[in-house]
This record gives sequence, structure tokens and C-alpha cells, in this order.
Amino acid sequence: MSRWRNNRTYLLSIENAFLKMNNINRSSLFLINTKQRIGEWTMQNVKMTGSFWQHYQDVVANSVIPYQWKALNDELPDTEPSHAIKNFRIAAGELDEEYYGMVFQDSDLYKWLEAVAYSLQSHPNPQLEKDADEVISLLGRAQNKDGYLHTYYQVKEGLEQRWTNVRDNHELYCAGHLIEAAVAYYESTGKSELLQIACKFADYIDSVFGPEEGQIKGFPGHEEIELALVRLYLVTKENRYLNLATFFVNERGRQPHYFDLECKQFGRDQQGWWHGNYEYSQSHIPVREQKEAVGHAVRAMYLYSAVADLAELNNDPTLKEAAENLWHSVVHEKLFINGGIGASAWGEAFAGAFDLPNDTTYNETCASIGLAFWAKRMLQLEPKGEYADILENTVYNGSLCGMDIKGERFFYVNPLEVNGESSCRRRDHKHVLPERQKWFNCACCPPNLARIIGSIGDYFYTQKGETFYVNLYGDSIAKLYWNGQEVEFVQHTMYPWDGAIAFTINPSNSVQGNLAFRIPGWAEGEFNITINGENAAGEEVVSNGYLIINRNWEKGDQVSLLFPTKAKGIYANTKVEENTGKVAFTRGPLVYCFEEVDNGNNLSTIFIGDTSIKEVKNSNLLNDAVYLQLTGSRLQDHSDDLYSFKKPYLEEFTLTAIPYFMWGNRGKGEMKVWVKQQI
Amino acid sequence: MSRWRNNRTYLLSIENAFLKMNNINRSSLFLINTKQRIGEWTMQNVKMTGSFWQHYQDVVANSVIPYQWKALNDELPDTEPSHAIKNFRIAAGELDEEYYGMVFQDSDLYKWLEAVAYSLQSHPNPQLEKDADEVISLLGRAQNKDGYLHTYYQVKEGLEQRWTNVRDNHELYCAGHLIEAAVAYYESTGKSELLQIACKFADYIDSVFGPEEGQIKGFPGHEEIELALVRLYLVTKENRYLNLATFFVNERGRQPHYFDLECKQFGRDQQGWWHGNYEYSQSHIPVREQKEAVGHAVRAMYLYSAVADLAELNNDPTLKEAAENLWHSVVHEKLFINGGIGASAWGEAFAGAFDLPNDTTYNETCASIGLAFWAKRMLQLEPKGEYADILENTVYNGSLCGMDIKGERFFYVNPLEVNGESSCRRRDHKHVLPERQKWFNCACCPPNLARIIGSIGDYFYTQKGETFYVNLYGDSIAKLYWNGQEVEFVQHTMYPWDGAIAFTINPSNSVQGNLAFRIPGWAEGEFNITINGENAAGEEVVSNGYLIINRNWEKGDQVSLLFPTKAKGIYANTKVEENTGKVAFTRGPLVYCFEEVDNGNNLSTIFIGDTSIKEVKNSNLLNDAVYLQLTGSRLQDHSDDLYSFKKPYLEEFTLTAIPYFMWGNRGKGEMKVWVKQQI
Repeated sequence: MSRWRNNRTYLLSIENAFLKMNNINRSSLFLINTKQRIGEWTMQNVKMTGSFWQHYQDVVANSVIPYQWKALNDELPDTEPSHAIKNFRIAAGELDEEYYGMVFQDSDLYKWLEAVAYSLQSHPNPQLEKDADEVISLLGRAQNKDGYLHTYYQVKEGLEQRWTNVRDNHELYCAGHLIEAAVAYYESTGKSELLQIACKFADYIDSVFGPEEGQIKGFPGHEEIELALVRLYLVTKENRYLNLATFFVNERGRQPHYFDLECKQFGRDQQGWWHGNYEYSQSHIPVREQKEAVGHAVRAMYLYSAVADLAELNNDPTLKEAAENLWHSVVHEKLFINGGIGASAWGEAFAGAFDLPNDTTYNETCASIGLAFWAKRMLQLEPKGEYADILENTVYNGSLCGMDIKGERFFYVNPLEVNGESSCRRRDHKHVLPERQKWFNCACCPPNLARIIGSIGDYFYTQKGETFYVNLYGDSIAKLYWNGQEVEFVQHTMYPWDGAIAFTINPSNSVQGNLAFRIPGWAEGEFNITINGENAAGEEVVSNGYLIINRNWEKGDQVSLLFPTKAKGIYANTKVEENTGKVAFTRGPLVYCFEEVDNGNNLSTIFIGDTSIKEVKNSNLLNDAVYLQLTGSRLQDHSDDLYSFKKPYLEEFTLTAIPYFMWGNRGKGEMKVWVKQQI
Repeated sequence: MSRWRNNRTYLLSIENAFLKMNNINRSSLFLINTKQRIGEWTMQNVKMTGSFWQHYQDVVANSVIPYQWKALNDELPDTEPSHAIKNFRIAAGELDEEYYGMVFQDSDLYKWLEAVAYSLQSHPNPQLEKDADEVISLLGRAQNKDGYLHTYYQVKEGLEQRWTNVRDNHELYCAGHLIEAAVAYYESTGKSELLQIACKFADYIDSVFGPEEGQIKGFPGHEEIELALVRLYLVTKENRYLNLATFFVNERGRQPHYFDLECKQFGRDQQGWWHGNYEYSQSHIPVREQKEAVGHAVRAMYLYSAVADLAELNNDPTLKEAAENLWHSVVHEKLFINGGIGASAWGEAFAGAFDLPNDTTYNETCASIGLAFWAKRMLQLEPKGEYADILENTVYNGSLCGMDIKGERFFYVNPLEVNGESSCRRRDHKHVLPERQKWFNCACCPPNLARIIGSIGDYFYTQKGETFYVNLYGDSIAKLYWNGQEVEFVQHTMYPWDGAIAFTINPSNSVQGNLAFRIPGWAEGEFNITINGENAAGEEVVSNGYLIINRNWEKGDQVSLLFPTKAKGIYANTKVEENTGKVAFTRGPLVYCFEEVDNGNNLSTIFIGDTSIKEVKNSNLLNDAVYLQLTGSRLQDHSDDLYSFKKPYLEEFTLTAIPYFMWGNRGKGEMKVWVKQQI
């Protein structure tokens, strides 16, 4: 069965599947109005055809997903067992063992299932689908009859203890990942078993939490279920899911604080493991009052994603304002050049505004991926080029860096600078690993990478009213609904290595409407466009970072775009004290870095003045990759003295920079994104 | 009774005092051969006459000592009680309360007594001496009849528990401070009561620890007693003290490791609170095998001081080599420009070679003071200008910075850079306070400052064979024995503000010998000298950083020295990655820094090229202080954008630098020693 199917037929088959559902505790289940929402919210039929994303989707299908499956089944040598699947077996009464793992161990399996769902679209794999179906069946057997499913409480603490610590114990977080997996698996395969399990759990949660007498007025310590419930609402049109997501967001940070009440009720230490700092979980004040992004960065991204969702779906201007304020805080005050966020290892959290340390930052891979989730939703809330710019930045530079080229080694933490050995010995650097790892005990990042790579097509286009927005560029074919027509969108491009995009529109019938192409921020407003080979004089309008063309689009219409990708230096605001007097280099959407393997050690001695940059093709690691060559200088000592009145001198040499996301593929060593300027 | 007395008479009075001792468990007690050792090891009659050191000795006498006395007596409002004196009262059976405080709380009182001893020399104070005598009498009453004195075990754990955790529980450390206080108080006042208490404790320790059957083959987790026992040996000539110090140093780091054996014997966790890392206490390998300075910096300094002592007194070339190797490691690889040491807050410890972070360093005040202790002993082991250079550096720049000008506020940690607010919010910066504190719960630094300031005269001169070395310069009068003569040495100078020193030698009778004047490293070999107003052509030899003049010195002979103090830039080796491309400024022995109060905030934006430096007198904080004015530039943004392709530009302005040790006297704000160079 081909995954590349007509959406309409496909969704009808899902409808039939839903009709068969009879064992879930829900009053009604509406299916999405496909015409209205396709291209906006559901999984999109966007197929990657160029080598860049194909490579990464291959790697996910052939390496990450099988490897993680082994991890989930405790089949990896030299690695701590995951025990995730065993925990479900125990919960199902099919295995007599003790619970093992983190309190959120279940989510490892859910995220794997979600990644599998996306991967099956581009890489059909009957054995993998069979494995997934079997494990889904296990989830059904493990699920409590009331719908509850969280093996930590089912196996270890006892069901009577559930919901006694929503602050720390991740029941709602795991439920969110179950729901996301269910929606994705349902959209991808048309199979509804997992969706039924998720709905049953969501219905149960909806009965436990809420504003009514006897319901818990709480919210999760780790956000995730909010955005998941929105996805569930969008696929089922069940308003209760939207309302429950809204309830969780509205309750967050209200006084009296639910986490305090919960502690009191269950006699727990009020301080909790996170020192009573509610900024950590973005629950220090009500969401609408939050203006500064604080606390655990991944949690923040998941919350802000839901805030953007709800602002749009509930048409709530107060939530829109909150989302915009928080966006400003993150993007204009707390963002690393590569779309990394979370400058503080302590709490895996945001630091103060402009506090962006290159070498001790946390920049969790999951946080950058979370920023992509959020940016996608901000685009849906309001189409603005800035949202897509950040989306592009965080996908290429902040997320892919978390995995090596082969998909076999990972970074959890993504510094912009790794110094020599003595700095690796520093205690305050111990979270910064100079070498990619096989796996992590807290295995959140690799499956998150698999999720975003597998579903990257979902980030390419949005539709708002009559306008169809092209946010990301990449060699691909999409089949989407637009203004009542099925339209094929074809991009031919070497992006991100080249800024030329040949765009072909093939509507089933001619279609009238705005087609909006993002003008990347890095292009600084410069672009070249032709429509069907002719200059589009007068036809186009530039608005909000998009080039908008209104016309009657015929089958075979071609738009040729050219954005200048010439490599250039970029500078941080001087408020970022780490980077004053430094320069980084970008080319097109990519941020570059200098590695020891190319440039020798002690990269701190390198200075770069105004220099021409030579662009060099190098396919050693990735096809068509472009490296940069620059003339720089290295500071040299006159003697071995630790301190000297004699000023060190500069010696010229040729430097090589490679795309940041490709670093750490050629052995251990120093790395720097920001280098000193010769001022 | 004047503290300014003839040494010979004074020591005879001490001899008489010793003869009266009859209640201590010692077989013999020899007094120092005054002629042989005076000017080398005992407290020297060096009186500060110029305003610089007089100011600091006044501050210690009038502020630090009375304030600390109140602290010891729990009379300070808004401060956690010390309870130190109460603990002794409880031990003496005169108070019925619980023990309170650190396990080394006793040492606070001992260090205060030692500081009092020094201060009484320059600032006679009958009431203070009475208070000290009374508290000494309390110590006698608190002392166990076998000589043991450590209130933590006497009051809290029970005597049967003593010596069960010499790794962590500081009994030997406190004993060391008791001994140092006793030696100082005895030398200063001629009173022997405290010395008797110390000897009684030392004798008891000597019976418990040692190589014989049934004796503990252990050594202290926190070194201190080793150097103290040497001091006790030097004042009593009792070889057992020297041998016990030697025993402790020799046992350190041997396998099987005593800390392991102790853990096993007393059923304690092998790992201990310091994670089983024996580098922390410099006991990872035997002392003679140690080549790299590691672990807790204060502990290291106290150990290395004893190593230098024992290398000389035991004439042990293997220990001399160890001392020299460790000196090289500290001074050529791990030293901050200001004589600060201990780059790692984790463990208050040395970091790797050349790992010298300006803003997160620990640089405990006590560690720099400890480096002065060690440098003094290295000078005694072998006269080398470098030892005196480091001594001078660490005293002026690394120690005095720990206290404000008024002696009322202190720094425990001494960064070379304090950045803006967001950096203060960083978890990895939480040990770095941007503002001086009134007191610390772990109150080691203020009394240590009082000790070194009070005894600064002891660091001015050393004698080795027939040569008399002048190590430190400062307005002072000394009365010392040299080659059989009592000689008055008079320095008239504005040092450290000026490099001109008028040196007058007044021997009781003419004396033949080498007088060696240190040529400061910062003078880069340049100096001007006249003897009795005439150029000393040919008479002088430069050796090991000293200018040596051999002649028959007559009363009133004058040596005029002039070292150029012109302010200049200094550069770190490029291996110090924190400082590549940066410059610091020095003038004479002083390191300078830039404060926000003079230069505005965001000091990271400041660049300094090759510029002339204007020296400006400013007596607002300290008489005759010299500030520097330089032309620099400040990097300015074109916009508020977090990142921009537009390069920031430079704007010239006038910068002011003040001596580093004077920073933090004018409110809270940023500070930087190293600023960026315009390269």
C-alpha cells in the first residue's frame, strides 16, 4: 500500500475506521473537514525529493528508528536498559518484573511511534509497521479499563497514587506524547487503534481535570498535553479536547497555586525537587501575564506552542498577545545565532536577556525542535516572515546539529563553542560534551529529531484565508488542497546549498489566489523572481516578509526564485557580552563554525578581519555541501611566559568553516561559531 | 610595656617564661638560638611607618579585630552566631548548651588570637590583650587533661569519636591554627600560657600519630598543622615537632591510603563528601611525586608551605624538587595575573593548566594569602627574585582585594571580572558576589587578612648565610640581627605608589656582608641605584633577580633605588584562552582594573589599542593612590537587533583604571581586569 495517497480517499478510509470504534468512552467523534483544514493543520502530503532531506529521512528510517527500537527492547549492548516496553508488559499483566526507568519512560515509546508514523510515509516498511501495530496492541492491553495509561503508577506507585503529583510525575506529559503519536499514526496509516487508546485516555483525563466540582483544578508540571489535545481536537473535532487544553493553559500560574495545594494535600515538601521555583515550569504567574520566557526551555516551547494554537482556534487576542510577547523575549533577547535556546544548564533553562554563553549553554536539541513546533504555530496564527526565518534557522542549525550525519551519535546539549581539554575538565562545563554520544538515559532528543525530520514536510506550507504561504524551501513535491482544488506544488532546488528555487504549480483546475513566498531574512530583502520565465513586474507585493503574487494559477505555471546565498559575517548586539568584538559566518540559511580538525587547536587565538570568503564544494560528509575558506590570523606568543609585557603578534593563515549542524562528525576537538574580529 | 623592643632582651624574657612551665607533657623545650635564626623565621621587628601599610594595620586593629571579637561572642546583629567562644565554654564545663557551628569553628578563635598577636605589636591595646588573655585562659580550662582540644568532639561527638575522621573533621587543622596563634602570641607578648596549651596538644598529637606500633599512620584532610609544627619547632627547638610535621608530609598520599583505611575501620562511606577525589586534599599520590598543583587551593598552599619548610630544615633535596615542581605548576600555569589561585569553584580548587576564567574563578582570599605564606618559605629555601615577585603580587593584588578600604566588608571569592546583572543570575556564577559582604558563615578569610596584614613586616627580609635579602619594599623601620650585629634598616618610600626607595642601614657596629635588593620583575631589569649619593659602579652584582652589594656597611649608609613604575600593558600567554586578544594594565607592583562607576556599564564592549597612559593622583579612597587614564573605544550597535549583518562601530572615550585591590569600594557594578585589545 502506497503512503503517497490522495488525501480525500485516505480521510474517508479513516472515517470508516472511526465508525468501527465502539469501545471508547466518548459521546461523539467528529472528523476533520478535510477541505477546510488540509494544508493547515493535518499531516501534509509533502514528499522530500532532494538529497538533503532525503538523506536525513533515510537516516531516520534506516538508523535512528531501528536503533531506538532496540533500545526500547533492551537489546543494546553497553547501554543502560530502557525497559520501556517491559514496563507496558508488566502493566498488561504479561510480565512479572519491577518497574524500571524514569517517571516519563513511557514517552520514549510514544515518541518512537510518532516517528515511525512519519517515517512510514516516506519509507514504507511492513515489518516496522507490524512491530508498531503489535506494540500498539500492547498499549491497549496495558491501558486501565477507565482509560488511564501510565506504567509508572500502574506498576510501581499503584493506581491509588495517580494524580497526586502532576507537578513532577509526568502523567499528563506522557499522555500528550501518546496523543501525538496516535494522531500521527492515524493520519499516516489510517489505523485507528492507537487513536482510540489516546481518546480513551483523553476522555478519562477530561473527566478528572476541569472546572467542575470534584474535578482537579491542576495542570501539568511539564507541558505537552496542551498542544497534543489541540492536535486531537483537530483530527476529531471534539470540542472537549480543545476545552481541556484551554483549561490547562488558563489554570497555569493562578493563585492559589495548584502545585502548592497539591503539596499540602498530599503532605509533600512544598519546595519539591525544583526548589519551589515555579518559573521552571512557566507557572509562576498566569500565562497571559508572562512577558519574559523563563524556566525549562523545552517545557516553555511546548506551552508556547499550545498558547499559539489556542490563540488562533479560540480566537483569543489575550493569548495572541501573550504568544507575541513571549516570542519577542525568546527571539530578540534569548536566542542563540543557531536557533538554540536555554542558555542555562541549571534547570535546562532560559537565562537572563542577552545572557548567551557560547561554551556553557545548554541549548537542548529538544528545545530547538520545540521552537520549530512553536514557530510553525505562530505562522498559523499570523503569517510573518520572521516566524518562518526562525523556523528555518532552528531546523537547520539548532536541530540537525543534535545528530551526526549517519544518525548514529547524538548531542543532547549543543554549545556554540567547545574549547580545549582544560575547559572540558571544568565542573561548570560538565554538561557540554565534546563528542557525540550513542544514546542517553534520558532519551528524549533522538526520537524528537526523528519526529521533526520525518514530518519536515508539514512545516513547508501554511494556508491562511485565500493565501497560500511557502515557508520553507527544499526539493519536494506536495499535493495539497487550496481554494477547493487539489494542487501539486513542486520545488526544484539545491536548497540549503543554493538559493535558486524553481517552483511549479499544478492545480487540478486553474485556481485564483495569493501565493506567498517567504523572502528569507538572511537575503536582506534581495531576491530575483520570474514567473513563467518573465519578470514579474508589478504583479508582486512584499508584505510581512513574504512576496505575494495574486493570479489565476494554471497547471504548469512556474515561479523561479533566486535568493543570494553569498557567505557573510554576522554580528551580535553588544548587549551579548560573550560576542562583542566577534563575528560569525552564515551562508544562506546556514550558520557556520570552525573546527579543530580544519584549523588546529586553541581556536581562541584566531582573529578574522575584513576578508573575502571563498566558497568550496565538499561532498565528503554530505552531497553538495559548501564549506568556507577565509584568511585569518593566529595570535602567537614571544615566549612561554604566562604573562608578559610583550604583546603577542599575529600570523596569517587560511581558515576553513563548515556548516554548524555538521560539526562533530570528524572526531573530537575544539569548535567555535563566534571568532574574534580584528578590530 | 612597649611592643617595640629589643629582640635579645625580649627573647631572654621568653626563655624565663619557659622555665616556669612545668605542667606540660614534654621531655624538653629548647629555645631558639636567637642569633642564628632571627631575621629568618621568628617574628621580625619590622614596623610600618608609611601610610599604606599603616592604614591597613590601623584598619585591622580598629575594625577587623573588634568586629571579629563581636562575631566570636555572637554580638553581631543580622549575622548568624559564631558560637565559637560558647563552644569552648561548653567544653570547659562552664555553659550547658549544644555545640553549634562548623567542625572547624575553633579555628576562628585561633586565627583571631594570632591576628591579635600581630596587631598588638603595632597597636598596643591593654583591653584587647586582656580579652585575649582571658580567652586563652578559657582555652586552658577547655583543654582535656591529655592535651586534646577540639570542641566539636569534646562537646558534640564525644571524645571516644576523636581521630575517627581526620579526613574531614579538621581536628589537626584546628590544632595547627592553635599552634600558630600560640607561637605568634608568645613572640609578640612574651606570654607563654597559650604556647603551653599548644605544646600540650602537640605532644598529645605526637603520641597519637606516628610510625610506631599502635600509632595512627594518618594525616590531616586539611593541611595546616604541618607548617604550624614547623613554627612550633622553630620557637621551641623541639625536634619531635619537626619530625611529626615530616611524618605527616611523608605519609600523605601513600598506599594503602589512610583515608580508605579510616573509612573501612569506622564503617564510613568510602567516597566521603568529596567524592573520593583525593586530589582535593593533595593526597592522591605521595607528595614527592606531585608535579601538578591540584585540589583545594588553600589546602595546597598550606601543604606546599610545609614542604618548603621541611625541604630546608631537613635539608631534603627530594622535597625541594617537589616544592619547585609545584611552584612551577602554580606560578607558570595556574596563576591569575593578580596572584589569585583556585580557578574552580567546584572544590575551591585548581583547574587545569592555563584554565583561568576571569568571571567564574574562585580565587579565595585565603588561597592568595596562602601563596604568600608559601612564597615566603620558598625565599627562605632559596633566594630567588621570582618568589618575592609572586609574594608581592599576591599580597598587594590577590590578598588586599579581599577587604574594603575600611576593613568592614569582605570578598571570599575574587573574580577578575564581574559582568552585568544577567551574568549574576547565572547559576555557575553564584559564588561570585558583585558586592562585598559583612561577614561569612565560613569566616576564614577576614581573620586570615588580619593575620597577613598584621605580620606583613615578617615578609620584608630574609637572611641566607651571609647575605641579607630585601624582598619587599615599603616605608618601614626594622631592627634585626645580621652577621652578629643588631642593624636598623630604614626604608623611606611611597611604595607601592612610587618606585623610589631610600634605604638607610644603621648597624650598631660596621658590618661586612652582602645586601641583596630585589629587582622587581615588573621593572624588567631596569633600575637606578646610588650608594651614599654616588653611582655604585662595579660594586653590584645582579643574581637571581637580586641586586647584591657587598661592602662594609657603616651606620648611616644610604642606598637609593629607583624602579620605573610607568604604567604599561601586560598580556597573557595565548594558552590562556580567556585572555587572548586582551590586555591588562599594571603600574609598579599593582594590577589595575576598570569599574563601571568610572567607565559605564557593559565593559565587554570596551577596546583599547596602543594608547598613552596618563597617571593621575587620587586620594579619595587611599592617600597618594594613582589611577590611570587611557583612551579607549566602545563598540556601538547600529540597531536593537539581536543579530545583524551590519558590523558594530567604535566610538572613542576616556577610560579610568584603578588598582584592582581597591575595587568594590564605590558601590555595586561591573569590573574587568582584562579588556579587549584593538588588534
